[in-house]
Amino acid sequence: IFTVKWEAKQAEKEGYAHFMLKEIHEQPRALKDTLSGRIAPDGSGVTLSEINIPEEELREINKIFITACGTAFHAGLVGKHIIETLARIPVEADIASEFRYRNPLLDRHSLVIVVSQSGETADTLAALREAKRKGARVLAVTNVVDSSVAREADDVLYTWAGPEIAVASTKAYTTQLVSMYLIGLYLAQRRGTLKPEEMTQIVTGLRKLPDKVSAILENGKDIETFVRQYCDCSSIFFIGRGLDHAVAMEGSLKLKEISYIHAEAYAAGELKHGTLALIVKDVPVIALATQSVLFEKMLSNIKEVKARDATVLAVAMRGLEEVAKEADQVMYIPRTHQVLTPVLAVIPMQLLAYHMAVVRDCDVDQPRNLAKSVTVE
Amino acid sequence: IFTVKWEAKQAEKEGYAHFMLKEIHEQPRALKDTLSGRIAPDGSGVTLSEINIPEEELREINKIFITACGTAFHAGLVGKHIIETLARIPVEADIASEFRYRNPLLDRHSLVIVVSQSGETADTLAALREAKRKGARVLAVTNVVDSSVAREADDVLYTWAGPEIAVASTKAYTTQLVSMYLIGLYLAQRRGTLKPEEMTQIVTGLRKLPDKVSAILENGKDIETFVRQYCDCSSIFFIGRGLDHAVAMEGSLKLKEISYIHAEAYAAGELKHGTLALIVKDVPVIALATQSVLFEKMLSNIKEVKARDATVLAVAMRGLEEVAKEADQVMYIPRTHQVLTPVLAVIPMQLLAYHMAVVRDCDVDQPRNLAKSVTVE
Repeated sequence: IFTVKWEAKQAEKEGYAHFMLKEIHEQPRALKDTLSGRIAPDGSGVTLSEINIPEEELREINKIFITACGTAFHAGLVGKHIIETLARIPVEADIASEFRYRNPLLDRHSLVIVVSQSGETADTLAALREAKRKGARVLAVTNVVDSSVAREADDVLYTWAGPEIAVASTKAYTTQLVSMYLIGLYLAQRRGTLKPEEMTQIVTGLRKLPDKVSAILENGKDIETFVRQYCDCSSIFFIGRGLDHAVAMEGSLKLKEISYIHAEAYAAGELKHGTLALIVKDVPVIALATQSVLFEKMLSNIKEVKARDATVLAVAMRGLEEVAKEADQVMYIPRTHQVLTPVLAVIPMQLLAYHMAVVRDCDVDQPRNLAKSVTVE
Repeated sequence: IFTVKWEAKQAEKEGYAHFMLKEIHEQPRALKDTLSGRIAPDGSGVTLSEINIPEEELREINKIFITACGTAFHAGLVGKHIIETLARIPVEADIASEFRYRNPLLDRHSLVIVVSQSGETADTLAALREAKRKGARVLAVTNVVDSSVAREADDVLYTWAGPEIAVASTKAYTTQLVSMYLIGLYLAQRRGTLKPEEMTQIVTGLRKLPDKVSAILENGKDIETFVRQYCDCSSIFFIGRGLDHAVAMEGSLKLKEISYIHAEAYAAGELKHGTLALIVKDVPVIALATQSVLFEKMLSNIKEVKARDATVLAVAMRGLEEVAKEADQVMYIPRTHQVLTPVLAVIPMQLLAYHMAVVRDCDVDQPRNLAKSVTVE
């Protein structure tokens, strides 16, 4: 006779060493669920039956605010770019703890999108109330059915990520990203700002994202070499332009949260205006270079930091292999539509943070000083 | 006979050890010059004869973009807050290297304000051209007469800072701030968004800033104690809310540029969403707490980092002495109008960066890897 010892918590991890790793691997499923039933069967557009903005009100929206905290705010930064590009409505992404106190210029022609995994984030909820008080319509993107944010918003778009246990958000973030695409496409569709073929291209691209995330996860081992080499560094910099800048911010936050390395993200063009002074021999720089239109500019930023002997780990899209000539290591993401890259580019960032935390022997799922949802101010 | 050896460069420093220190001390004069002739003698408003926006065009401005790089971008962040508060026109502050490539939503009803000390910053100049191409009116804020930016803009507001030699900008920044106030007041005046007494209060406050900057400089020694204690740290965090957040960003950039310490600024409300994981025993946190309406919130953020045994240097306005109970050290700035605090709060930040660089034996005026004006992309 022998007894097998196991804990209930362990079982819930389904064989993964940590909830975070499990949740990273759940992303293909979470993304599929979040897209499910929201894409027209013929791929010609999106169907968000949960959003009920009357025609006239929708036509008169002249400004969108996206407000959130932490990782959800980073989804909002991608959202700004996406909605402006697809629906041509001006968008301002704002940290909820700033938005609520700065008397923002909004009225009944404003749409305020609040993003919160738990739906209970104190500052986000306060921002929602401030927006409603000023007469704006509020659309909530949240992961928890019947949460405070869901109850108080005019419309709710649920991310179907399932329960997220690890403090560092992964699957909630990527499903928030997908929600931003759905909202962008929805507004574009109702306002007629996209050509049918563009719409179809992006919708088709969206549908293929879950399988592409799976492909990245299968080849995620490469990042471990980099991690072993740089696990003792005290600072890491993340650089990117456009959408890649938003992903850089999320990548740097992940690393901070769980590995306790001082990571910081920078718009790559800003390097020369100060941060370059910190780039010396062997400082690790994570360079996101997934945007083909900005690719040459990113290459020159990579050369800039290489000239100071930094070590560069680049994340690039297949087809942009030229980056391998400059960077020390490259992680490739599968080809996708230009606007969709953040969903793929963030996966290596999550793996980087995860493995760094493991190698540094940090408490991956329960980092010091942090709570899963910040329900106090 | 004895010969006195001195270099021409030394002489230009007028007895100061570095150009940066000289320029920090020139600020009262630079601010006076920038305000000179631009305030109505009776203090009832501003007179910016250099700005010639026709009445009809001005009435139709429905969006302002402020675009710049580095320190000038940080002046733009203050500008956003100021112009929205005073003139109630929506403002978006954007990094020039991002703005120029992201196809921003602007048209002939947009006013684009570009800020550049040299007037030759490559990305800022490109942003100006992109704005003009899209039909927007461009107002330049620059320190160099007849610079490219000055020549190509529709209107120019010069900062009369005089030549700035040190790479790290100080007097150019504070004169850019003053320009933001002048523009904010000018727009408020032409659009009638401020009550006469509010206008007079702010204008009077502006006039008194140079003397208040002098007062801070005279009492600047306190910061050296802090510097000696923390000169070996590898990371420093700057936190603030609202206008203080913008000053925190500038303070952190100054420190990075010349002392090579990894400094990072955070909206204080975002701490709980990740960065708090990096706050452990003796980590220095610079907490800006000059905004009375946000003061209680900042106090609770200070307690939050103190609970993790961080060391807090606070910058507060006279009258908000309660902060001394929580912070390890407090630098006070003289009382002024709520919106004007950035001009005063940044002075201790400049002194902090300067003394830190001196103690760490860095090349204050010529930091590694950086150029005074970034005329290449």
